[in-house]
Amino acid sequence: MTNPLKVAIAGLGTVGVGVVKALTENADLLASRAGRAIEITAVSARSKTKDRGVDVSGYAWYDDPVKLATETDADVIVELIGGSEGAARELCERAIAAGKHVVTANKALVAHHGTALATGAEAIGVSLNYEAAVAGGIPVIKAIREGLGGNRASRVYGILNGTCNYMLTNMRETGRDFDVILKEAQELGYAEADPSFDVDGVDAAHKLAILASVAFGCEVAFEAVHTEGIRNISPVDIAFADEFGYRIKLLGIAQMVGDSIEQRVHPCMVPLTHPIAHIEDVFNAVVTDGDFVDTLMQEGRGAGEGPTASAVVADILDIARGISVPTFGVPAGDLKVTDTLPIEARTGASYIRLTVVDRPGVFADIAAALRDHEVSMEQVVQRSRSPEEPVSVVLICHDAPEKKLQGALDAIAALDAVTERPNLIRIETLGA
Amino acid sequence: MTNPLKVAIAGLGTVGVGVVKALTENADLLASRAGRAIEITAVSARSKTKDRGVDVSGYAWYDDPVKLATETDADVIVELIGGSEGAARELCERAIAAGKHVVTANKALVAHHGTALATGAEAIGVSLNYEAAVAGGIPVIKAIREGLGGNRASRVYGILNGTCNYMLTNMRETGRDFDVILKEAQELGYAEADPSFDVDGVDAAHKLAILASVAFGCEVAFEAVHTEGIRNISPVDIAFADEFGYRIKLLGIAQMVGDSIEQRVHPCMVPLTHPIAHIEDVFNAVVTDGDFVDTLMQEGRGAGEGPTASAVVADILDIARGISVPTFGVPAGDLKVTDTLPIEARTGASYIRLTVVDRPGVFADIAAALRDHEVSMEQVVQRSRSPEEPVSVVLICHDAPEKKLQGALDAIAALDAVTERPNLIRIETLGA
Repeated sequence: MTNPLKVAIAGLGTVGVGVVKALTENADLLASRAGRAIEITAVSARSKTKDRGVDVSGYAWYDDPVKLATETDADVIVELIGGSEGAARELCERAIAAGKHVVTANKALVAHHGTALATGAEAIGVSLNYEAAVAGGIPVIKAIREGLGGNRASRVYGILNGTCNYMLTNMRETGRDFDVILKEAQELGYAEADPSFDVDGVDAAHKLAILASVAFGCEVAFEAVHTEGIRNISPVDIAFADEFGYRIKLLGIAQMVGDSIEQRVHPCMVPLTHPIAHIEDVFNAVVTDGDFVDTLMQEGRGAGEGPTASAVVADILDIARGISVPTFGVPAGDLKVTDTLPIEARTGASYIRLTVVDRPGVFADIAAALRDHEVSMEQVVQRSRSPEEPVSVVLICHDAPEKKLQGALDAIAALDAVTERPNLIRIETLGA
Repeated sequence: MTNPLKVAIAGLGTVGVGVVKALTENADLLASRAGRAIEITAVSARSKTKDRGVDVSGYAWYDDPVKLATETDADVIVELIGGSEGAARELCERAIAAGKHVVTANKALVAHHGTALATGAEAIGVSLNYEAAVAGGIPVIKAIREGLGGNRASRVYGILNGTCNYMLTNMRETGRDFDVILKEAQELGYAEADPSFDVDGVDAAHKLAILASVAFGCEVAFEAVHTEGIRNISPVDIAFADEFGYRIKLLGIAQMVGDSIEQRVHPCMVPLTHPIAHIEDVFNAVVTDGDFVDTLMQEGRGAGEGPTASAVVADILDIARGISVPTFGVPAGDLKVTDTLPIEARTGASYIRLTVVDRPGVFADIAAALRDHEVSMEQVVQRSRSPEEPVSVVLICHDAPEKKLQGALDAIAALDAVTERPNLIRIETLGA
């Protein structure tokens, strides 16, 4: 047996407590798997006296997390503070500079500073592991970086935010509005008091940028991700989706288009024949398409104490076993700076819901706007009749370039009979 | 850059050709990912002159695969011959003894001799990698052995045979009989001329035994797997399943029950609310339940040139990167010899289809047989009426011990009005 691996943990919130539990409850198993003991030696958090349900009195205590990097002899620093700047960033930079391995669950940090951190870690010969940053307990980074390492990836996409998926599932099952469900999700602890990171797609965009980097061997480019959230989705849309054989999911999609990368997060209509349509509630799922494997889908819990701790401990186990892989699959110096395409480069099918005053001639005006922008309609549906009142009309359009689609939507929005901004949900068949 | 990794491949069938393609087409990418080149140096197959669509003239040729182990300087021997004995086994044993790493796609070999081979490989310090042996392109061994390495696994189950899943999907979609679909699958190349390994569950049992070993850290115990195939499934069963909200899948299920392991392969009724119910056609899926991650499902192609090659190349890439993990997750010497439970230990719900002569009093006799064996019925359904003719009657029974269930089935089978052996399909809700 080699020497024990010494671990210092910064941040004892939900995930930190889970990591302490996993490392202690499964200590024997981990020692057998690693060929050496894994020991927690030091921790840092805001309050030393808070009751967290686990005993941390046996570990050295630091009020200042950065001191874990500078004053302890830990082999691995586990960063669970969060946030792309401040203490989290400083701790990781200092730990790497001090020759310590870093394990982090911090998607914002990796999305904003991943390339620089990887460059530093690889130069000094330590690992920067971040499995928990994407899709919680799902070992998706390991799958892409190692398990699919024989493939040239063409696309990676998935349900990357459990809060949004929970809300969409709940809206479908209960027919209730976004605002009502959001309030309930906040009360249940599924959504933050400030829900913007989740419901506006930012959290999913962080994760997508990381996935794209690992899948395509390019520098992390979070700012290039087109990002929309789910605030515009109504129970009416969900009911229509059902009728047309789709389910509405907030997806992050990154794909190679020629030598460029398209990265976008927005609500999608996914056919019910695709397994990802059946991923419900807080579950996450990630699909990776490669030239030899064809397609791999992984599904599991994307957040929470246990699942996130599972990913963090797997990263620690890798270090204990001496497993070292380039941070984003290829050496940081080999990461490409790749052109990223704007959303306007998309060509695809679409669902458009209009709120129009129910009067003769409206359909003709709408059809003319589509024709003028060369957008071809597959079907149009109006379920209820209510003369001179606003009603929902849904258009399903064939593949069309995003620019023309937006032009048509602008023209339609300008019609007198159209009383609200048209609601566009892109249809993604996600076929081979 | 380190020296190139030298690879010798035994077997140039579908998978071997796929491996040659992946290693050559993605050579630059692999070199960047591994930090060193991966080079094929020697190959062996039955016919040197056969046109395989790839050029192997640049590699040293061996008629005798075993000589790849004894006469070449390859670092890695890739065994793609198949079969649990003969050349495949000898090649692997000799390669390990010669200090060469072994990568194999051979589930029969690992299921029968995995523990002994692992012991040999670990004693000499080489890797025995077999990702391609289970679920084709799905990196499930890596997921359990590494990605979920922080967990104590409680259960692993899945759709492990693509041929059976294709046939069940096709039967459901077309309403045709098993025999017709089997013949078609054979013509399409989805089923072997001798389909027994697939349709009788043996192939799935090989894979389940391997999964159980990795998940639970026990010696591979293929002979302890209770194995049933899908020959008894009829379109009538599939239609009834649909009506009750289930889908019929051939599952392999391994779980810890106290300190013992239950391992079984048989057709199951799975609720449509479970994502695994939606895995169709030739796709495979594996679900792993652990104490921290909760549950992880992985889905992808379980066979075929590209997907299987993807797994083989990932194993080679691990070796090129210097990644070494105990063969079954813990050192071979630590593998437990665990009690395995017979199918009689199962307690669960069930679907029973009877063929009975439609006459008064039959239901009373059936109900009495169930009562006498303490099996409690949830519902009974007879759809058609045909006095004095055989009709299908379906019983859904609550959780009952397998022994009592079999007793009831024997009693029912002995009734005059029952004209065929009752068809039992176990209901598996697979909840937490």
